Amino acid sequence: MPENVKFVYMFEEGNQKMVDLLGGKGAGLSEMMNLGLTVPPGFTITTDACRRYMKQNAFPDGMLDQAIKALKKVESKSGRKFGDVTNPLLVSVRSGAPISMPGMMDTILNVGLNDSTVQAISKMTGNTRFALDSYRRLMQMFGTVVLGIHHEDFEEALSSLKKKYSLKSDVDLTEAHLRELISSYSGIYTKHGKEFPQDPNKQLEIAIEAVFKSWNSDRAKAYREINGISDEMGTAVNVVAMIFGNMGNDSATGVAFTRDPNTGEKKLFAEYLTNAQGEDVVSGSRTPRSIDQLEKEIPGAYADLVKFIGILEDHYRDMLDIEFTIEQGKLYMLQVRVGKRSARAALKIAVDLVKEKMIDEKTAIMRIRPETLDSILHPQIKLKGSEVELAKGLAASPGAAIGTIVFSSSRAVELAKEGKKLILVRPETTADDVRGMSMSQGFLTQKGGMTSHAAVVARAMGKPAVVGAEEITVDSKTGILKTRSFTLKEGDTISIDGTSGTVYKGSIQLENAKASEDLDTILTWCNRYRKLGVRANANTPEEAKLARENGAEGIGLARTERMFLGNDRIPIVRSMILSTTTEERRKYLDKLLPMQLADFVEFFRVMEGYPVTIRLLDPPLHEFLPDKESLINEINALQNTRSLLGGKKDKLEELRKLLVTVKNLEEFNPMLGFRGCRIGLLYPEIYEMQVKAIMSAAKQVESEGRELLPEIMIPLVGHPNELKIIKERLIKTIHETLGPKTIDYKIGTMIEVPRACLVADKIAEYADFFSFGTNDLTQMTYGYSRDDAEGKFISRYLEEKIIEQDPFNTIDRDGVGELMRIGVERGRKTRKDLEIGICGEQGGDPETIYFCHEIGLDYVSSSPFRIPVAILCAARASMMYQEAGKQ
Amino acid sequence: MPENVKFVYMFEEGNQKMVDLLGGKGAGLSEMMNLGLTVPPGFTITTDACRRYMKQNAFPDGMLDQAIKALKKVESKSGRKFGDVTNPLLVSVRSGAPISMPGMMDTILNVGLNDSTVQAISKMTGNTRFALDSYRRLMQMFGTVVLGIHHEDFEEALSSLKKKYSLKSDVDLTEAHLRELISSYSGIYTKHGKEFPQDPNKQLEIAIEAVFKSWNSDRAKAYREINGISDEMGTAVNVVAMIFGNMGNDSATGVAFTRDPNTGEKKLFAEYLTNAQGEDVVSGSRTPRSIDQLEKEIPGAYADLVKFIGILEDHYRDMLDIEFTIEQGKLYMLQVRVGKRSARAALKIAVDLVKEKMIDEKTAIMRIRPETLDSILHPQIKLKGSEVELAKGLAASPGAAIGTIVFSSSRAVELAKEGKKLILVRPETTADDVRGMSMSQGFLTQKGGMTSHAAVVARAMGKPAVVGAEEITVDSKTGILKTRSFTLKEGDTISIDGTSGTVYKGSIQLENAKASEDLDTILTWCNRYRKLGVRANANTPEEAKLARENGAEGIGLARTERMFLGNDRIPIVRSMILSTTTEERRKYLDKLLPMQLADFVEFFRVMEGYPVTIRLLDPPLHEFLPDKESLINEINALQNTRSLLGGKKDKLEELRKLLVTVKNLEEFNPMLGFRGCRIGLLYPEIYEMQVKAIMSAAKQVESEGRELLPEIMIPLVGHPNELKIIKERLIKTIHETLGPKTIDYKIGTMIEVPRACLVADKIAEYADFFSFGTNDLTQMTYGYSRDDAEGKFISRYLEEKIIEQDPFNTIDRDGVGELMRIGVERGRKTRKDLEIGICGEQGGDPETIYFCHEIGLDYVSSSPFRIPVAILCAARASMMYQEAGKQ
Repeated sequence: MPENVKFVYMFEEGNQKMVDLLGGKGAGLSEMMNLGLTVPPGFTITTDACRRYMKQNAFPDGMLDQAIKALKKVESKSGRKFGDVTNPLLVSVRSGAPISMPGMMDTILNVGLNDSTVQAISKMTGNTRFALDSYRRLMQMFGTVVLGIHHEDFEEALSSLKKKYSLKSDVDLTEAHLRELISSYSGIYTKHGKEFPQDPNKQLEIAIEAVFKSWNSDRAKAYREINGISDEMGTAVNVVAMIFGNMGNDSATGVAFTRDPNTGEKKLFAEYLTNAQGEDVVSGSRTPRSIDQLEKEIPGAYADLVKFIGILEDHYRDMLDIEFTIEQGKLYMLQVRVGKRSARAALKIAVDLVKEKMIDEKTAIMRIRPETLDSILHPQIKLKGSEVELAKGLAASPGAAIGTIVFSSSRAVELAKEGKKLILVRPETTADDVRGMSMSQGFLTQKGGMTSHAAVVARAMGKPAVVGAEEITVDSKTGILKTRSFTLKEGDTISIDGTSGTVYKGSIQLENAKASEDLDTILTWCNRYRKLGVRANANTPEEAKLARENGAEGIGLARTERMFLGNDRIPIVRSMILSTTTEERRKYLDKLLPMQLADFVEFFRVMEGYPVTIRLLDPPLHEFLPDKESLINEINALQNTRSLLGGKKDKLEELRKLLVTVKNLEEFNPMLGFRGCRIGLLYPEIYEMQVKAIMSAAKQVESEGRELLPEIMIPLVGHPNELKIIKERLIKTIHETLGPKTIDYKIGTMIEVPRACLVADKIAEYADFFSFGTNDLTQMTYGYSRDDAEGKFISRYLEEKIIEQDPFNTIDRDGVGELMRIGVERGRKTRKDLEIGICGEQGGDPETIYFCHEIGLDYVSSSPFRIPVAILCAARASMMYQEAGKQ
Repeated sequence: MPENVKFVYMFEEGNQKMVDLLGGKGAGLSEMMNLGLTVPPGFTITTDACRRYMKQNAFPDGMLDQAIKALKKVESKSGRKFGDVTNPLLVSVRSGAPISMPGMMDTILNVGLNDSTVQAISKMTGNTRFALDSYRRLMQMFGTVVLGIHHEDFEEALSSLKKKYSLKSDVDLTEAHLRELISSYSGIYTKHGKEFPQDPNKQLEIAIEAVFKSWNSDRAKAYREINGISDEMGTAVNVVAMIFGNMGNDSATGVAFTRDPNTGEKKLFAEYLTNAQGEDVVSGSRTPRSIDQLEKEIPGAYADLVKFIGILEDHYRDMLDIEFTIEQGKLYMLQVRVGKRSARAALKIAVDLVKEKMIDEKTAIMRIRPETLDSILHPQIKLKGSEVELAKGLAASPGAAIGTIVFSSSRAVELAKEGKKLILVRPETTADDVRGMSMSQGFLTQKGGMTSHAAVVARAMGKPAVVGAEEITVDSKTGILKTRSFTLKEGDTISIDGTSGTVYKGSIQLENAKASEDLDTILTWCNRYRKLGVRANANTPEEAKLARENGAEGIGLARTERMFLGNDRIPIVRSMILSTTTEERRKYLDKLLPMQLADFVEFFRVMEGYPVTIRLLDPPLHEFLPDKESLINEINALQNTRSLLGGKKDKLEELRKLLVTVKNLEEFNPMLGFRGCRIGLLYPEIYEMQVKAIMSAAKQVESEGRELLPEIMIPLVGHPNELKIIKERLIKTIHETLGPKTIDYKIGTMIEVPRACLVADKIAEYADFFSFGTNDLTQMTYGYSRDDAEGKFISRYLEEKIIEQDPFNTIDRDGVGELMRIGVERGRKTRKDLEIGICGEQGGDPETIYFCHEIGLDYVSSSPFRIPVAILCAARASMMYQEAGKQ
C-alpha cells in the first residue's frame, strides 16, 4: 500500500515557513512567488523525500510520479516542452537544505539537453558553443555521478584534445572542438558498456538522485561536522525552468546583496554579466559589471530589480542575498536568502534596521551572533603590503600569532620555560604534541584538514592554527622547514594568520580592535534587557582598566598569586616558603604587604564604584619554587666539577637545601593537594597579610573620596568549617586594620569543589557570596586534570564524539551544570539574597552564559576582551528564556 | 523568680531509664532500690544541675536546699546524723555521668569528718588509723581542689614527715604520725589564710562542686575526645551514706562481674577484702581474696550477693559489673553497670544469653560492637616469655608491627621503595613525617600523648603505634635509639604492640586469629536479618580463599592491574607500553593473556557459585615504569663514567629512550589523568585481551561443572558514551571468545567520578551493575588527593576538628554520601533492578555500612579480614533502621 505522502510542491504551494520541508532555496522561491515577484516556474521535492531516499537507498514510492506531474505544469507555465526539439524546456536541478551549505552540494544545469534539444537551444540562444559546452558538461556529470565512470576518463579526453590542438584553456575550445569532445565522451560511455540517457525524464531522475547523494558527499559531511549541522536533515531538490541570461544583450545574470555585506552600508551591492549564464560569473572568464551599468543597459529589468529588492527587504526585514537572471528583458528571481555579512556589517545593519523601524531592539540583538564579535574585539593582522608570504594553508583556528619556530613538543616545553613565544611546526600533530601545543602561541602543520588533530586541538585551546599547508615541507628530525622560496630553522620568527590561513616570514604587525559605534549602540540596548551582571577576570590594574572600558561592572576574579610572581617579589616569596617558624614567615610576609597594598590601591581606583572580588592565595606553594628536575641536574653538574671551591660549595649546599624543601612540598596530585584555603587555614598569617593589604588599600582609596566594594574570596572551600574559621580570623584582622572606620566589604567563597555544591546550604551560612570556579569544578567533577587531559584524551574524545564539547570551553550542563544548579538552589535556601557568579573561563562562552541565566546567577565574569560578548549573550539569554516562557 | 526545677532525686525516686538525668551510677542505684536490693540511703543531684553549674559557674538556685532536705531523709533512713559527734553520718560524694568514664572524675569519701566526728568514727570502726587517714586525705583534697593550695604543699608535708621518721611508704604511717600530719596540714591552711571547713554541710557543698568541676578536668576532656563523648553532657553527683566495710571481720568490700569478663564463662567473677574499704583494694596493699572464701567467712552476705546478682542479671539481661560493701554482716550494693568485656567474652555472653532465653538473637547481635571484632580477626602478638622488652609507651593505635628502625621520613620513603618493612622512630612526628609514616608498618615516638600527631595519624591510617615512650631517647640526627639497656640504630629490627603499648627487641611472633564458634553462631544469626550482601575486595586467589572462609558471598573488586606486577610480567607490560603500534602492543598483550587467564581460572574456582567482579585495567601506565628521578640519576651516573664501552653505551641509549616515554606519560595530576576507561577507550586492545582472558577462564571453569558469574567492571566512567562504546566492543570480544557457548555475565561500571553520580540515569542504560568506588569518589568530591592530603592536612584538619572524620575511613555522608544517594536514585530510575554495591575501602567501616543499607545498596565489599565485621554491621543496620521505623 503506497502512502499518500506529498513529496512535491509547486512554488506557488509553498512559503518561507516551510523551510524545514522545502529547504532554504525552495521556501524562498515560493515566498517570492507569493509576494508577486517574477520567479521561473518550478517545484520543490521535499527534504522528507531525501530522508526516505537515504534510508532505503531508493526514491520513495510516488515521488517520481508527482515530479513528472509537476513538470507538466511547469511546461504549461513556461510555454516550452521538456524534450521538445523546437522549443525545449530545460530545467536546473538544484539542492537546497534547510540550513545553507553554500557550494557543498551538487547543482545540475540544463537537464533536458540531448542530441536533438542541443540544436534547438543553440538556435534559441544563438550561442552554439554554449549549447555544446552545456551538453558535454551534462554528459560528464552523468557519467561520473550516476554511472560510476572515473572522473579521470573524461578529464583525459579533454586534456588530450587540448594537447592535440595546443589549446591552453577550456575557454579556447571552439564549437568544432566541443563536437569532437562530445563524440569522444560518447566513446567513453560505450567503452564502459553504458549510454548517455537521451530521455529527458531519465535525465531528470538521475539528476534528482545525484543531488540527494551529494548530501552525503565527504565535503558536505565535513562541512556539517564543523558547523554543527545534523546529518539527519537532508536536502530538498528544486527543479526550475532554465532561464537564459545568454539570449542576447537584453539578457543578463547577476547576484546582489541588498546592503554592503562588508560594511553594512545601505546601498545595493550587486554584479552582473550581460548575455551570460551564472557559470560565467563563477568561472571568472569575464569581469562582472557594476550594477549601475544595468540601469543604462536594460532599464526595465533594473527598475524591477530595485522594486523587487524593496519588496523583499520590507518583507524579510533583513539584508538579503539574491540571484537573478534577465531573459530577453524580463527579470527573474532565482534565489533569495538572508545574506551573510561581516561582524562589522552585522552590527551596522542591525542598528540601521532599528533606526528604519524595520525591527525592534530585541530583534537587533538576536541578529548578532556572539561568536562573530571575536574578530572585532581581538587584535587583527594589519597588512602593510611589504609582508613576505611563506605559504597558504587551511584557516583552521582564527586569530594571529607570532613566534619562533620549534619542531618538537619536548623542545617547545623547554623553550617556553625560558619565556620564548613559539610557533610549533609539525608535519602533523598527534596526542604526543599536545603538551608542546599548550606551550606555543600557535601551530602550523604540513598535513591534515579542518578536522585534523591540530585543528581540533587549536580550536579547543582557542589558539590560532594554519593546517594542511601542503606546499611546505617539515623535517622535524633535521629541524628544517622548507617553503617554495625559503629554508627556515628553529629560532626563526614566523607569523601565522589562522583567520586567512596565511603564513608570513618574520614578525607582522597587529592592530588593536577598533571601537565601533554600532557595537556601543547594541551593547547599550543589551544593558536594557539583560538580567545577568557582567564582570571581568583581571589580575592586574591594566587588565581591570581594559575591562572597565569594555563595559565590565566590576572584577569577578583578581588572582592575588599573580602578584607574588614579580621579579622583585619571588625571592621574598621563596624565603617565606623556606621559613621554618611562623615568626620567620611573618617577617617575609611583612615585606610583601606594601607591594600587595599598592596593587590593590590601583585596582580599587580603576574600579571606582564597582565591586572588586579578590581571591586570596590559591596555588600550591611549590609553584613558587624551581622545578625539581632542573635542580637535580644543577646539583649533579656541580658535584661533577673537579674543584669545589668555597663559593661553589656554598651554592651546592644551598641547592641541596632547596631540593629538600621542593621534595617535601612535592605532591602526587597538586590539583587535589595542599592549596587554597587549606594553606590559608594552616598558615593563617598568609591570608591575614593579604586581607590587611586589601583593607589598608580600601581605607586609603576611600579617603580619596572614592566609592568601592572589596569582596574577599576564599578559594577551594569544601567544608563549611573551613570558611567559618577563616572568616572569623579575617574579620578580626579587618577590625584591627580598619580601627574605628567602617568600610563595606563582603566575604565569600569560590564554589569549585564538588562537595561545596552539595553542602552549599551549610556553606551559605558563612558566605556573603558564591563564585563558581568552573575550571576546577570541571576538573573534579569529570575527574579530568586539564593540563593532562586536554592533550592526552580530550581531543581524541572530541574527535570520536565520546563527548560533545570540551567541558573547559562550554559548561557541561549534565554534570558540572547539575552541580551548579544544586549549589544555587541549596545556597539560596539558606540565604535568599546570596550573590552568585561564575569566574571560570567558561564565563565568557555564549552557551555557558545562557546556562548561567537559566539557573539564576547574578553575574558572569569573563576575560576583559570578552566583556562585550558576555553583555550581548546576557541580553540574548533574557530574550531566549522569555521566548521559551521561562522567566 | 527562682524556677521550680527538681535537681535532687532520692534513690527511691529514680530508675534506670533516667540515666541521662541521673547518670549511670545514680540510675543504677535507684533501679536496685526498686528491685528490692539493699542499697545505702542516698540521693542524686542531676546532670541538669551540673550543666547549669558549668554555664553560670555557680550552683543553680534551689539545688543546695534540695540537697540538704534530701540529706535529712538519708539521716532518718540510716539512723545516723550528719555531723553528730557520737553516731555521725558520713557520705561519699560520687560522680556518675550518663556514659561511663571510669576513673576520670573525682569521688570524695567520708565527707562529714571533722575534728569531732573523726573520734566517733574511730570508735565506731574500732580503727583509729583509718579514721585519721581518711581525715587527712579529706583535708588534702579540700585544700587543693577548693582552696587552690598547691598539691605540692601537702605532698611536702607528708614526705618530710616520712623522712623525719624514716618511713618507706604511706602504709607505715602510725596513728601518731597521722595526728602530726593532720596538724601540719592545718598549718598549711593557716599559712594560706584559710581554714579547713569543720562544718559538714560546707564540706558537702565543696565536695559537690569538686565533682562538677572534675567534669572539665584535662584528663576527663581528653577521655571524652578519644571516646567521642559530648562535652555538653555533664555529670550527676551521688551523695551516698558511707557504709563501712572496715567495721570488723563481719565487714568487707568487693567488686564482682556476674560472668567472666575475659572468657565470658558463666560464673561469678569477684574479689573482696575483709575488714576493708574500697581504697584498700585499689592501693594494692592487701591481696584481695577469691569470692569462694566469702561463703565461709560471711555466709549470709554471700547468699544475699548470689541472690542479688541473680535478680540483677534477670532484670538487666546482661553481664554486670557491681560494687558491694558488707557492714557488720549486711550486704549493701554500691554500684551496678553493664560490665565491660573482651571481644571474645562479648560473643560468648551474647550467645549464652540467647541459649538461656534471656535475650533474642537480634539483641545479641546489637550487643556486639563491630570495632571490637578487629582484635579477634587480626593477627595477635603471641608472647613466649623470651621476648626482650625495650620500653613501654602509650598504646595509641592497636595492632602489632615488626620492622627495621628508620629515623626520618625521607629515608623511610627510600627504604620502602626497596621493599623494606619499617618502623618509623621519631622524638615526635609532625606533618612533615606523614609521607614516611605512610611508608612504614608502625610508629614509635618518645614524646606525645593519645592525641598527639603520631597517635591521630596512626589511628587514621589504621597502623599500630606506641607513642610517648618517655624512657627512650631518640636522636634522629645521629640515628640512635637509646633504651634503658640497649642502643639501636637504623636497620635494627624491633616490634611494637600498639594494643599494649609495649616495644620489643627483634622480631616477635604473631599468631593468626583463632576461629570462634560463638562468632560463627552470631554471624549465622546475622545472615538471617541482614539485607545487605557482603563481598570481598581480593586481588589474588589466596585472598579470595580467605574471604570465602570468612563468609564473603563473592568478590566485589578484583583489581587486574595487580596481576600486571609480577616479576615475570612487568617486563612484558613495559614492552607493551613502549610499543609504538597497535600490532606491537598486541604482541605483548598476547603474552600476558595466558597469565591473566590462569589467574582468573583460580578466582572462579575459589569463588564457585558466587559472583566475581573483575575490574579492568585502571592505573595510569606510568605506574608500571621506573621512577623518573632515579632514571635521571642513573643516566647522569653513566654519562660521567670515563670510558663508555659498547655495553654501557647501549644501556645509556636504552635508558634515554625509556626516559622519553616516562616523560611523555608524566602527568601533573595522574589521579585525574590518562587512566581507567580512558586508556581502555583509546587502546581497545588492552581491555579486549583482559576480557578474552576472563571469558576463556569462565569457559574452562564452567566446563569443570562449576557455577560462576563473571562481572566485568569498567573503571572511571564519567560519561555514558564511554561505557556504551566499551561495552559494544567487549560484547563483540565475548562473542568471539565464547563461540556458540553461552555463559551468564554482567558488564557494569565503577561509580567513582562525581559526574557519574549526576548522570547515573544515563549510565544505567548501559550498565548491569554499579559499584561505588568511594576512594576516588572521595578524592574528587572533596578535592583531596589521598596520597598528599593524608599527610599534608587531613591529620591537621582532624586535630583542629575542621572535619569530624577522615572521609577515607568513613563515608562523608553530607558530600560523598549525597552523591551516592543521587547516583542510586537516578540509576534505579532507569533500571529498577540495577545491582549496586560499594568497593571503596570505607566498605568495611561500620558507619559506612549503616549508610549503605540506608541508601539501599545491594552489597558492600570489604577486605577479606573484615568480612565478619561487615556481616555483623549489615545485620545491625537492618535492625537499626527497623527500629527507626525506616524499612
